[in-house]
Amino acid sequence: MASQGKKLINDPNDVVTEYIEGLVATYPGLQYLDGFPQIKVVLQANVSPSTFDKVAVISGGGAGHEPAHAGYVGPGMLTAAVSGDVFASPPVDSILAAIRAVTGSKGCVLIVTNYTGDRLNFGLAVEQAKSEGYIIEMVIVGDDCALPLRRGIVGRRGLAGTVLVNKVAGAAAAAGLPVTEVVAEAKHAAELVGTMGVALSVCTLPGQPTSGRLGTDKMELGLGIHGEAGAAVVDLQPVDLVVSHVLNQILVNEAAYVPITGGSNVVLMINGLGATPLMELMIAARKAVRELQGVHGLAVDRVYTGSFMTSLDMAGFSITVIKSEQAILDRLDAPTKAPCWPVGTKASVGVRPPVKVPVPLNPSSSRNSEIVSRPPVLTKYGFILEAAIEAAAKEVVSMKDCLNEWDTKVGDGDCGTTMERGATAVIEDTKNRYPLNDAAETLYEMTTTIRSVMGGTSGILYAIICQAAYTILKGHSEPTPRSVS
Amino acid sequence: MASQGKKLINDPNDVVTEYIEGLVATYPGLQYLDGFPQIKVVLQANVSPSTFDKVAVISGGGAGHEPAHAGYVGPGMLTAAVSGDVFASPPVDSILAAIRAVTGSKGCVLIVTNYTGDRLNFGLAVEQAKSEGYIIEMVIVGDDCALPLRRGIVGRRGLAGTVLVNKVAGAAAAAGLPVTEVVAEAKHAAELVGTMGVALSVCTLPGQPTSGRLGTDKMELGLGIHGEAGAAVVDLQPVDLVVSHVLNQILVNEAAYVPITGGSNVVLMINGLGATPLMELMIAARKAVRELQGVHGLAVDRVYTGSFMTSLDMAGFSITVIKSEQAILDRLDAPTKAPCWPVGTKASVGVRPPVKVPVPLNPSSSRNSEIVSRPPVLTKYGFILEAAIEAAAKEVVSMKDCLNEWDTKVGDGDCGTTMERGATAVIEDTKNRYPLNDAAETLYEMTTTIRSVMGGTSGILYAIICQAAYTILKGHSEPTPRSVS
Repeated sequence: MASQGKKLINDPNDVVTEYIEGLVATYPGLQYLDGFPQIKVVLQANVSPSTFDKVAVISGGGAGHEPAHAGYVGPGMLTAAVSGDVFASPPVDSILAAIRAVTGSKGCVLIVTNYTGDRLNFGLAVEQAKSEGYIIEMVIVGDDCALPLRRGIVGRRGLAGTVLVNKVAGAAAAAGLPVTEVVAEAKHAAELVGTMGVALSVCTLPGQPTSGRLGTDKMELGLGIHGEAGAAVVDLQPVDLVVSHVLNQILVNEAAYVPITGGSNVVLMINGLGATPLMELMIAARKAVRELQGVHGLAVDRVYTGSFMTSLDMAGFSITVIKSEQAILDRLDAPTKAPCWPVGTKASVGVRPPVKVPVPLNPSSSRNSEIVSRPPVLTKYGFILEAAIEAAAKEVVSMKDCLNEWDTKVGDGDCGTTMERGATAVIEDTKNRYPLNDAAETLYEMTTTIRSVMGGTSGILYAIICQAAYTILKGHSEPTPRSVS
Repeated sequence: MASQGKKLINDPNDVVTEYIEGLVATYPGLQYLDGFPQIKVVLQANVSPSTFDKVAVISGGGAGHEPAHAGYVGPGMLTAAVSGDVFASPPVDSILAAIRAVTGSKGCVLIVTNYTGDRLNFGLAVEQAKSEGYIIEMVIVGDDCALPLRRGIVGRRGLAGTVLVNKVAGAAAAAGLPVTEVVAEAKHAAELVGTMGVALSVCTLPGQPTSGRLGTDKMELGLGIHGEAGAAVVDLQPVDLVVSHVLNQILVNEAAYVPITGGSNVVLMINGLGATPLMELMIAARKAVRELQGVHGLAVDRVYTGSFMTSLDMAGFSITVIKSEQAILDRLDAPTKAPCWPVGTKASVGVRPPVKVPVPLNPSSSRNSEIVSRPPVLTKYGFILEAAIEAAAKEVVSMKDCLNEWDTKVGDGDCGTTMERGATAVIEDTKNRYPLNDAAETLYEMTTTIRSVMGGTSGILYAIICQAAYTILKGHSEPTPRSVS
C-alpha cells in the first residue's frame, strides 16, 4: 500500500485548524473565529449580526469532508460553517459561537446531517440559542439510499445531498425570505434528494493505521463517509456497471426514498470522496447522464462533477440525484460567491449548444479528394513491400511488453503500447488502403496512419522518418535497397 | 496497496474520450470535435473561425492531467484544448483540427509544455498551419525547478505553471491584443514561473500494474507528472518541512530559475496531483504563505489551492510561484468562464478583511463573569470527589486503544481518542479549576470541559449526563451515593 496512510500533514491533532488557516489564506472572502483549537468556525467576511439583513444559514459537522462545509461559505450559500474534529461533531459551544457571530434580526437556519452526534450537539445549541432570544430552526438531511428499507428510529445518513440542500437554503435566504420559508424550502429539497456511494479504498484517519478491510480486487457499495463499512463488498467492476447499479438503488428502490419517476427533471451530482481523480469522476458522469436519460426516462437539467463532500483520502465517489422542480433549479442556479460551489454548469444563454461539432476539413490538401486504395493486382514489388511491412509490423506488435518494460526505465512505460497501436493500424491499412505497387505513395499513406493513431514522441518521429523516405523515393516506383537506405 | 491500481473506469483505451464526454456533459459551455478516438479536442461552444475576433489560445498535451487543459477552455482563457492519449502527445492531425476549428483572422497562439513529443507534434502542426495561411505562434513552458542545474539541450519540464501561462495568454487575447503581444505576455509569464512537486505515491496508468517504486515510509521530491522518478527519495516528513524545502528549491536555487527576490510580490499555486484531499492541500497552502512572507520576504497577492494539473491518481502536490508584476496579476484576475479556473481568490473590494475575528461572548450567561477556581482547602467530600474523578479519568485514558478498537467494529474508530481527550481535560481542570467542595458546581464545570473539548456523540452524551446530574445535585453540597444514583 503505497499511498494509504501516508499524509502530507503535520501533527494529526492540528489538521482541521491548519486546513482552515489555509482555506482562509486562499479565499479572502472568508474569516474564522479566533477560538482554536476548540472553536473551528468559518464565516463570510464582513457579516455583522447588528447589520446582517438576511436569514443566516449555517451548516457543519465533523471534519474530513472538505470542502464541506467551509468551502460553501459565501454570499448566496452559507453564512458560516462549524467544524468539529475529524469525523466528530462540533461541540455545542462552537455551534453557539457560529450562531452568535452571524445571526441578525431575521434569524438563522441550521442545516445538519443526520448523525446522532450532529443532531445532539446542533439540537442542544438550537435550544440554547432560542433561550438567548434567537429566531432559529434546524433542518436535518438524510439522503442515503444504500440500505434497502427504512432503518428504525435512526433514519438515513446525511451524505453529499446536504451540499445541495445548503445551496437551496442559502439562495432562499439571499432572496430575502424569512426563516419559516427558508426552512420549508430546505426541508422540501431534503425530501427530493437521494445519494449512494461506492469506494475503492478505506479512508485513513490522520495519525492512525489504515484498515486492511478492502481487498485489492474489491469495492464497497453503499458506504458512509466516516469509514463505516459499505452495505456490500463486491468484485471491482467497470464503472458503467457500477453507475447503473447505484442509480437503480437510488431510483428503483422498494423504499421509494426519492419521489422521482419517469418524465421528471433531475440534477445530478457526481461527488469524489477525496482521492478520486477528475478523469474518473467525469467518466462516471458521462454514464450517469446517459443512464438517467435512456434507462430512467429523466431529463438532466444540470450536472455537478467534482469533490464536494469527501471522506478524507477515500478513493471512490457518490452519486446524488435531486428532483429538479423549477423552484429548486432556480435556487441551484442562483449566483453565489461560495468558492467551492461549481461554476459553468448552466448554459449561458438558452439551451446548450450541441456537444459535438464536425472536424474541420484540411482546406489546402488536394489529397483529401483522392481515394487511395489497395490495387486489385500486386506487382512483384508490391508483394515484397506488403510482406516486408507485415513482417516488420508484426515484430513490433510482439515486442509490446518488452518495449513498455524498457520504457519504464527512462520514460513513462507506454512506448510498447504506442508502437503496437501504430503497427496494428499499419497492418490494417496495408490490407485495405495502401497503394502497395507504389512504394513512395505507400510511405506517404503510412505517414498519415502513424500521425493519426500513434501520437507521442515515437509517433511523430516515425511520421517524420516516413515523410522523409517518401520525399526521397518519390519517382522511384521500383525502389532498390540503395534508394531506401 | 488498497486503492493503487484500482480505477473507476471501463476500457483503459477509452478513458480520455469518456472523460471528454463527461466533461462536456457537465459544462454546457464546452463542445468537442466529432473525431474520436484519434481527435480529442475540446472547444469553446459557439466559436466559429469566420466570426471569432480574438486571438485563439490553444493548449494541450498528453491526457492524465485533468482538468488540464480541457477544464480551462472558456471565454477569457483557452479557446480550445487538444488531448493525446494518457501521457502521450496528441498527434499533428488533432492539433491541426483544433487550430482550424477556432482560429479566425487574428490568428492563434499555442501554449505547449516542454516535452519532446509535445514540441515535435505541436511544432509540426504550427508549420503545417502556417503553410495553410494561418497567423500562428507557439510558446513553450518549462517551469520545473527540481533539478539543481540547467539540463543540456532538453531544458526544463513543463509543470503546473503552464496553467498560469494559459490564463495570462487567454486574458491577453480576450483583451483584444494581437498574436505578437499575446505571445510576448505568455513568454514573459513563462519566464517568471517556477514549480516543484512532491509525491507520496506513484501514479498508475489505466490498465497497467502499479510500480512498487516508492516504499511505505518514503516520498519523492522533484518528480515529473508522467510517473518519472523524482530527483530524490527521502523519508516521509511533516508537510511544513516539505513546503519549506520545496520553496527553497524554487526561490534559492543556484540555477536562479525564477527572477524573484526579497520584496517582490508573488502568486502561489498549491496543486494536487490527483489523489490528494483538499485538507492536505490547504495545510500546505497555509505553510507556503507563511514561509513566502516570513522567510523569503515576499508579498503573496493570490493563492490558488486545488487540483489544477494532475498526474492520474498520484498522491502529492506541486508548488508553483510566479512573480506577480501588476500586468501579470491583472491577467490572472481577469474574469473567465473556464469552469476549472479557481474563483473567489481575490478580495471583492479593496484589501482583504482580517483572517480571524473574536469569538462572540455568550450574551446571556452570568457565569461568564464569575471566576471559578479550585478552593485553597478541600473538605472531606472535596478530597473524595477529587480522588474519584481522577481515578475514573485515568481509567478512561488507559482504555484509549481498547475503546478505539471496539469502535472500529461499529463506528469510526475514534471513541477512545475522544474519551481520552475529555478525560485528560477533566484531570487538568480538576487540578486547577473545579470548585471540588461543591459537587454540583464541579459537575456543572465538568459539563463545560466536556462540551468544549470532546465533541462527537460521546461528548454531547456525557455533557447531557453531567448537566442532568448537576440539576439533581444542586443544593446537596455533601452528596451521598443515593443522591447521585
